[in-house]
Amino acid sequence: MNLKIVFYYLGWVLNMEAVLMLLPCVTSLIYRDGCLIYFLLPMAMCGMVGWITTHKKPVDMVFYAREGFLAVALTWVLLSFFGALPFWLGREIPSLTDALFETISGFTTTGASILNNVEGLSPSMLMWRSFSHWVGGMGILVFVLAILPMTGGGYSMHLMRAESPGPSVGKMTPKLRNTAKILYLIYFVMTLVQILLLLLGGMPLFDALTTSFGTAGTGGFGIKNNSIAFYDSYYLQGVITVFMILFGINFNVYYLFLVKRFKEGLLCEEARVYLGIILASVVFITWNVRGMFPNLFDAFHHVAFQVGSIITTTGFSTVDFDQWPQFSKSILIGLMLIGACAGSTGGGMKVSRIVIWVKETGREIASLLHPRCVKVIKMEGKAVEKSVIRSANAYFIVYFLIFALSVLVVSLDNFDFTTTFTAVAATFNNIGPGLGGVGPMCNFSQLSVLSKYVLMFDMLAGRLEIFPMLLLFTPSTWKRW
Amino acid sequence: MNLKIVFYYLGWVLNMEAVLMLLPCVTSLIYRDGCLIYFLLPMAMCGMVGWITTHKKPVDMVFYAREGFLAVALTWVLLSFFGALPFWLGREIPSLTDALFETISGFTTTGASILNNVEGLSPSMLMWRSFSHWVGGMGILVFVLAILPMTGGGYSMHLMRAESPGPSVGKMTPKLRNTAKILYLIYFVMTLVQILLLLLGGMPLFDALTTSFGTAGTGGFGIKNNSIAFYDSYYLQGVITVFMILFGINFNVYYLFLVKRFKEGLLCEEARVYLGIILASVVFITWNVRGMFPNLFDAFHHVAFQVGSIITTTGFSTVDFDQWPQFSKSILIGLMLIGACAGSTGGGMKVSRIVIWVKETGREIASLLHPRCVKVIKMEGKAVEKSVIRSANAYFIVYFLIFALSVLVVSLDNFDFTTTFTAVAATFNNIGPGLGGVGPMCNFSQLSVLSKYVLMFDMLAGRLEIFPMLLLFTPSTWKRW
Repeated sequence: MNLKIVFYYLGWVLNMEAVLMLLPCVTSLIYRDGCLIYFLLPMAMCGMVGWITTHKKPVDMVFYAREGFLAVALTWVLLSFFGALPFWLGREIPSLTDALFETISGFTTTGASILNNVEGLSPSMLMWRSFSHWVGGMGILVFVLAILPMTGGGYSMHLMRAESPGPSVGKMTPKLRNTAKILYLIYFVMTLVQILLLLLGGMPLFDALTTSFGTAGTGGFGIKNNSIAFYDSYYLQGVITVFMILFGINFNVYYLFLVKRFKEGLLCEEARVYLGIILASVVFITWNVRGMFPNLFDAFHHVAFQVGSIITTTGFSTVDFDQWPQFSKSILIGLMLIGACAGSTGGGMKVSRIVIWVKETGREIASLLHPRCVKVIKMEGKAVEKSVIRSANAYFIVYFLIFALSVLVVSLDNFDFTTTFTAVAATFNNIGPGLGGVGPMCNFSQLSVLSKYVLMFDMLAGRLEIFPMLLLFTPSTWKRW
Repeated sequence: MNLKIVFYYLGWVLNMEAVLMLLPCVTSLIYRDGCLIYFLLPMAMCGMVGWITTHKKPVDMVFYAREGFLAVALTWVLLSFFGALPFWLGREIPSLTDALFETISGFTTTGASILNNVEGLSPSMLMWRSFSHWVGGMGILVFVLAILPMTGGGYSMHLMRAESPGPSVGKMTPKLRNTAKILYLIYFVMTLVQILLLLLGGMPLFDALTTSFGTAGTGGFGIKNNSIAFYDSYYLQGVITVFMILFGINFNVYYLFLVKRFKEGLLCEEARVYLGIILASVVFITWNVRGMFPNLFDAFHHVAFQVGSIITTTGFSTVDFDQWPQFSKSILIGLMLIGACAGSTGGGMKVSRIVIWVKETGREIASLLHPRCVKVIKMEGKAVEKSVIRSANAYFIVYFLIFALSVLVVSLDNFDFTTTFTAVAATFNNIGPGLGGVGPMCNFSQLSVLSKYVLMFDMLAGRLEIFPMLLLFTPSTWKRW
């Protein structure tokens, strides 16, 4: 492992974080909330550590997949650590564990909160908290679409394969920069459009910014205690619904639109399945909860919002869906696990993996009936490589092993099964709220410190497709060879 | 599909069922409970249908894996249908759905019951109900160890591979008969020993027979409303604990002992992991519930019983473990999913699959660090074939897809999440009781008819390693070609 290059890279990340903290600084200056110093201090620390590790370029610039994975895992951990300092220094979140939980939840775009009273935070803190979603979402796009393919295609799930076959060692930089630029452009423009549409609906600028950051990163931190229910307007909630769903679509589709390959974009299998699941869920749940709303449109409006929020793993809410019948809740738990498209800012297991698994099931049954028949699994019209299938399977198994272990540890807190199970599901899939004691109208503050650290690990593992985080705990990672 | 040979085979199964019903007939004669006619009628029906389908041997006796799978699936369905008739004809279980549920639960050795008052059944009915466990357990041993290897090794999980490499077409009969004979012998002797030990402890013959049938099949139907708690004796409960655990061990181990290859038997990796899991669970749960019992030995005694009962998917109980803290309940839910060893009468996902998955996870992480390093997964000291790993993965995925769909349908009944989730877990893994509304002191009678049929499917699918049951619902199965 070339640890030098990893540290060099991390130095740049810290420099970047110092720059990003300018936004809450400006907010603090405008609102005069007295929090400026709590951002300047961490900025100075980031800048100093960053300067030390970046002022000398390492001689050996070779950067393999394993260095990439390690760098990515440490990036999220370091970003979160320094990002948590303002909350803790300002005593707005007095416990360091809680401040870390909140910040990891932010950068991983989970949106699970330990705050009982969000509205008690200073404006600059609220801005930083929501901004972390936007930054995290941006980071994950580059990670999924540019870093993952470096592992040899196994994890790339056919994202932009044709366009950018994954940068290989040596010629990595120009390709990666190019891909990243296009992604940032799409991400930036979409966020901007949402901000404008929310402003048009009469939302204040501060609210429009933070809400759009939360939507773009599919994060879900709100600035009101009752989340989006505060904005009691069909228009505003409708705009957020649409943008949540849009940010959950594979960004490959937008890229294809950008280069005017509309037909290919419209034929994207993953996006179609994703929209199909949303449609089916909305229909079933609306039918199931129709009696709880004054009319069918109202039911549809709120169900669409909740379904969009859960499947994209955003975690905003307009109603307390923990009160819905068990059938609806079971569908929502299912959506929590499925998640959004690969190559979006959303979390979960990803629709494309589900599609591959369902197709593989069909093939297994067929091979029982016709043992000599070889059936190839196709996705987006192309044959799926065996290594991709093997990866998807391995992912599934590791996913459930970690899930089971987490449930076991969290259950030491002795909450009921629903709370325990959905606390893990909601953090591991980067959704935010669960059901029961961690439902949309509750929060994670009541959990023990041990559980909080386990859930922090789950948020990071879920966000980084599990394996990078496991590398951190593999002894041989830290050996030089 | 050669349907003629399948029907011919099913005819013999029905003839056999008619013979098996002699046991409750004898019981009825001894206890003079007036139920004789309710057994004689189904016996006549079985015999008649059996005679019609078996009196002429089909010309084409070729029997491939797909015919084997179809025959196995239909065997369990038909056995259950005719086996349910006595309960229904005698009005002891007035609803045909409930009678079917109870009988499928019996033959699949699940032990989930819809009876509010078990003690209200006539002795012959109780005997037939428990006997179905014993018959089902015997059937499953032959299925797992003799029929599964026919699919080319993918599902055999290395069972008796060296000794009986799986009968291939043509020379199937002698090999299969030989394997079956040895298995029956082991099974029969072990049951007999348990009966004797229970009699020595002062248990009445009727109780010793039914309890041993339930233990041997890892079924769990009791003849008392409070299950094994009725026999308030450390000795009796201890004997049952030991035998539950013994019947959950891979029968390959007993076979190796029988042919005096003790060293190999003792080195069986699956059995060692299985016993390790039991030991660890007992230690953790005993620590967790120590305050709920008068002394540590008492806690250990009951925890060992419950753990043995759940991991082997028997489902007997001596205490209401639904009252235990969430940590213990989470471990128990984990044990429900893991299940016993492959090649035993126990259900669940099987320990050997878990071992393969854990090893594969390790390999995936290693391959990230050393992309060019090829690591072979070993089990019982031999390399595991790729087809076995692929099968295990496919099984895992189909398992969770069916699990999720079942939870969805059962949640239409609007019970809480714990009840819904564990109702599916307890039937799909052939355990018996779940938690909450289907906990050890409750039963399945309150569920809707739809849920009951879904759970019946789950019991059959769980018992037959899923794929044979899926074949029943694949249209091309029913085409002749």
